[in-house]
Amino acid sequence: MTTTRRKFLTAGAVTGAALASAGTLAAAPNTAPKLLHHVFFWLKNPNSAADRAKLIAGVKSLAAIETVRSIHVGVPASTEKRDVVDNSYHVSELLGFDDVAGQDAYQVHPLHKKFVDEHQHLWSKVVVYDAMKVD
Amino acid sequence: MTTTRRKFLTAGAVTGAALASAGTLAAAPNTAPKLLHHVFFWLKNPNSAADRAKLIAGVKSLAAIETVRSIHVGVPASTEKRDVVDNSYHVSELLGFDDVAGQDAYQVHPLHKKFVDEHQHLWSKVVVYDAMKVD
Repeated sequence: MTTTRRKFLTAGAVTGAALASAGTLAAAPNTAPKLLHHVFFWLKNPNSAADRAKLIAGVKSLAAIETVRSIHVGVPASTEKRDVVDNSYHVSELLGFDDVAGQDAYQVHPLHKKFVDEHQHLWSKVVVYDAMKVD
Repeated sequence: MTTTRRKFLTAGAVTGAALASAGTLAAAPNTAPKLLHHVFFWLKNPNSAADRAKLIAGVKSLAAIETVRSIHVGVPASTEKRDVVDNSYHVSELLGFDDVAGQDAYQVHPLHKKFVDEHQHLWSKVVVYDAMKVD
């Protein structure tokens, strides 16, 4: 596992040097995770800071699952309000995986099941988007 | 611009070393872009491979905008079909920014305006989620 991760991150560092040299992201090879798993949660009690904090701590714990390559836990950003922007969710979780097999392993991982068991009472709605990188 | 990017990427490389050493993502500081701008497009003509290819090429061109720190252009992944998974979109674009100012600058950038002008006839619906990282 550690070897795999080091390999991945070294590739990222090489990309960094290439990118700084080229000056544009478009010119650099992209070694970021290919499969994105983006989850949006709507809380049952959106005014409960305790519920929000508990959910945030819960999603952060998912970073420990071996096939997770990157994680971003967020809340709606204070960008301009536009019709196309859905800022009604309360907590978001973006996980990066190498491939579909990595995401499948995550779904059935004991830490993921524990997270769902212990936190699903907090949310009223969940929407998931899984996106595979196109070359 | 180049200086800023190099600084950002050097920090990423340091994270890589720390991560490989710690063995878990959770233990490493996260220097990935803090603001995620995730856009999902539904095509007017979902069966047109030409329209899809044109839109994909268009969103890839957005990587040249100076404040864009990362980009992932995707299509629905072949993960398990579940009620919570929305796989009805046709093309997705995840852009990373350092902050709200970076995303604001992107919105009014000539290359972004050009992209919208030249491609908006291709889509019937767009949904955007902007997520700010929580520490």
